This record gives sequence, structure tokens and C-alpha cells, in this order.
Amino acid sequence: MPPRGQRAFDITSVTDSGRVDRPDALVVEEPLEIRLGDDPIAVVMRTPGDDMALAVGFLFSEGILRDPDQVLSVAWCTDVEPSAAGNIVRVLASGADLDAAEAARRQVYASSSCGLCGKATLDAVRLMAPPLPPPPVLRVSQVASLPDRLRAAQTLFDSTGALHAAGLFDGEGELRLVKEDVGRHNAADKILGTCAIREEWPLGGHGLVLSGRASFEMVQKAAMAGIGAVVSVSAPSSLSVEFAREVGMTLVGFVRRGSMNVYAGEVVDG
Amino acid sequence: MPPRGQRAFDITSVTDSGRVDRPDALVVEEPLEIRLGDDPIAVVMRTPGDDMALAVGFLFSEGILRDPDQVLSVAWCTDVEPSAAGNIVRVLASGADLDAAEAARRQVYASSSCGLCGKATLDAVRLMAPPLPPPPVLRVSQVASLPDRLRAAQTLFDSTGALHAAGLFDGEGELRLVKEDVGRHNAADKILGTCAIREEWPLGGHGLVLSGRASFEMVQKAAMAGIGAVVSVSAPSSLSVEFAREVGMTLVGFVRRGSMNVYAGEVVDG
Repeated sequence: MPPRGQRAFDITSVTDSGRVDRPDALVVEEPLEIRLGDDPIAVVMRTPGDDMALAVGFLFSEGILRDPDQVLSVAWCTDVEPSAAGNIVRVLASGADLDAAEAARRQVYASSSCGLCGKATLDAVRLMAPPLPPPPVLRVSQVASLPDRLRAAQTLFDSTGALHAAGLFDGEGELRLVKEDVGRHNAADKILGTCAIREEWPLGGHGLVLSGRASFEMVQKAAMAGIGAVVSVSAPSSLSVEFAREVGMTLVGFVRRGSMNVYAGEVVDG
Repeated sequence: MPPRGQRAFDITSVTDSGRVDRPDALVVEEPLEIRLGDDPIAVVMRTPGDDMALAVGFLFSEGILRDPDQVLSVAWCTDVEPSAAGNIVRVLASGADLDAAEAARRQVYASSSCGLCGKATLDAVRLMAPPLPPPPVLRVSQVASLPDRLRAAQTLFDSTGALHAAGLFDGEGELRLVKEDVGRHNAADKILGTCAIREEWPLGGHGLVLSGRASFEMVQKAAMAGIGAVVSVSAPSSLSVEFAREVGMTLVGFVRRGSMNVYAGEVVDG
């Protein structure tokens, strides 16, 4: 059995010597809801393990708590639906900074209440996207060259070495738009926003290429825009693959030196 | 003049052949506040450029807007203090999904109002940390070996290739605690939370080593815990360096093959 932070997936590995179907271990990514008393403070996408420490650390690093003596208890929230079991931690504390808590609040739906909240919160991170149009047909040769083309289009990376890039490509595999940012999410949002402002929306028939990892939030951003294919230089998470398979998105990772792993959908020869 | 997304800093580069003071280009990281009408929705840490696209893209990817026709205007918020100029974008839209907006809300202080908000919001991301205790004395040999020691302590990375790690080291350079997560922030929060739960808090005299980039949020997390030194395998951002210099934190980056860049504070020989 793999460690708790990993999950095995059947994938297709494409190399110069052909295709191999094989199992691959991916890092697990799942939402954790952090509550202060009965108040949902945040849903963070995390790798399970040390969840109590994560919840407490989040409260300290956001300035909501400042002294270990404030922590009265840390426990799993148990009065939730089975699907949310193990994904909600409740911290009871005295003298928490409620302004800081308000400021740190994220991904928490206003209507959350304890009974509903588990499912509501965990589903909320998955269910917002409209039905996905059919993905573009991806060809091995096009996909293999996307990372180099993305890199070549980056204007800032060379000198700072610290920027993420996202690129939008069309059904012919042509790179149409590249944006850079210190944050991966921002690079993708700059792509989406540029297209929305141009009224080129939604982006059915297009794909998104990423310089970094394909975390759940990245594939979800693609889905929100109707983008049916995500190509990443690095690894996807478990939730990205599960989500891509669920919505019919093509998800390709580890595109390096002509090889690639196909995690969802397909990449055709040629 | 460097491109808008870069800023030059004087740093000390330490290699086998000695020390060189030289300018270095770092990626700019600054907070952008995104408003929907007069309502602050989020403060995101971003690289300036395409800010209107970023603001609009954020609203689309969070499901707050779904159709370009909903966007009535996108503009800089001008009735703010000079320090916030160019860092607040206001989107006027019709039919926005207010539940989604509530869920996406982050880093926005409840007391924000337009006149105050600029400074309040932008300062808020910088001012929460308590005064930093003196940093531990860092030695070149200790720092140089930290990334390899961090990597060796990672249990999940080898098989998945997608995990970030954070490690806590003491004044002797000994690695005391290592945590992994799909998210950089979570790995750091797991460190902080573990120590807070053990009542080993604050963490004065300790340092944090990161497998990834030293973004502002990472050095701020360290400061919140009283950690006086941050060592990263990769690059810091402009704001990380500015913040580290302001609070007296030692910040070292690009620790690779015995070389390193000292961005703030100092690393002594030996």
C-alpha cells in the first residue's frame, strides 16, 4: 500500500519507443476545511497528513492565534457526512483575532452550517464549472514542443528565474497567448481575463500549457473557461486527475525531452 | 531600465572562489486588490502587468462572473492614497454571483472602506508580524548542505515528484523538522503548527529551509513564527527581499552546488 500522501493511477506513458500503460504514484491533494469553533475559516488544498498541525499553523501564520496557550483543543469534526470525514479540522481557541480571521477567510461558502457544510464545502471546490466542451485533439509532436515554445515566449524568466508561465494554445497546437507571474494561479487568471476582456469566451477547443505543476486549482481554472486540455511540464495531483477524468478533460504531465505522461483523455500519434 | 516585472537589488553572491557584491534582477511581487464595484474581493500577490486581465480573470475563474457581457468596466481605483496607486483594480459588472464572491474573498479586511482601504489593505499584508528576534548565525557550509539534507528527509517526493518541503533548522544548522505538501504554504504551516502544538513557540533562533521559491507569503509566515532566517533553493521575490531587510531577517536563495545568493542579512564563512 502506498503512503497516505500518494495514490496510484493507471496512466499512459508516451516515449520515443512507444506507449506503455503503467501505474503511476501521484501526490494526493484534497480539500481541508479549517474551522475556528463552529466558524469555517478556510478551505485549503493540501496533502493529507499532519492535518491538525496544518490547521493550527494556518491560524498562527495568518495572525489569528499568537500564543500556544490560546489553543484549547484540535480535533476532527465528526458530525459531518461520510464524504467529508477526515477533511474538516476544528480548533477551539480563546482570544482569537477575529479581524484576522475575517481577512484570512477563503473558499468558505456563506451558507455553510455544520451538517451541510462538509459536503457543501468539499463539493463547492469541484462543482462550479459548466459542462466542458470536447477537448482539442492533441498530437504527440505538438504537445512535446509546447514547453519549449512556452519557455521561448517568456520575457522575464531568464533574468529572474522565478516566474511561472501559462500559455493558451489552439486546436492546431499554436501558442496564442503567454502570461507570466510570480504566482501560477495569476498567470492562468491573466490568460482567462485577457480572453474575457476580448470577448473571446468561453475557450472551448483550446488548451492550457503550464510551466509548473497541474494542481487542482489550475485544472479547475481551465474548466471554468471551457478549456478542454491541460499540458504541464511537471506533475499533476491526484485530484487534478480525478477531476479531469470526471469532466472529460485531457491532462498531460511531465512533458520532457519528447516524453509525456497522459493522465486523462488521449494524445494521438503524429 | 529593467522591465516592469523586475527590480534590481544589490546582493552578495557566495561561491567557491569567494564573495562578490553584485546587482541581481528579482521578479517583482506586489499586492493587487481586486474590487467588484466598491466591494474588496481579494488581495492577490502578483507580478505587476496585465493587472486588469488578472482582476477579470480572477472573477471568471472563481465563478463570480461567467459571461464577458457582464463586465461593464475595468479601471484603476484612483481615490486612494499614493502608496496604493496602481495596486487596486475595480471591476464594474452586472449580475455577479455574490455567493461565489463571498467564497472567494481573501485577505480583505472587514473594516476596509475606499479612502482607507488602499493603505490598510496593502499594509495589512506586511504589518502583522511581531518584532523579529535576532536571526541565528548562518555558516556557509551549513547553508550549502541544507537543501540536500531537506531532500534526503522528504519521504514522498521520490515517487511523486510533486511535493514541496519545508524544514526547520536550529542555531547549529541542524534540521529538526521536515514537512511535505502539495502546497508550499501548507508545508510551512505544518511546521509552524507542529511547533505551536508542542508549545515550542515562538521559534526565535531558528531558520526555515524551503524546497521552492521564497515568495512574500513564505517569509511572512517565518516572521509570524519569529523565525529569523529563510534559506531557499530557488529565487526570492522583490517583496520578500524588501520585507526581510525591513524586519532584520536573513534571506538566502539559489543555494546550489555550494553557491548561494545572500539577499538580506549575512552568512559567515566556515
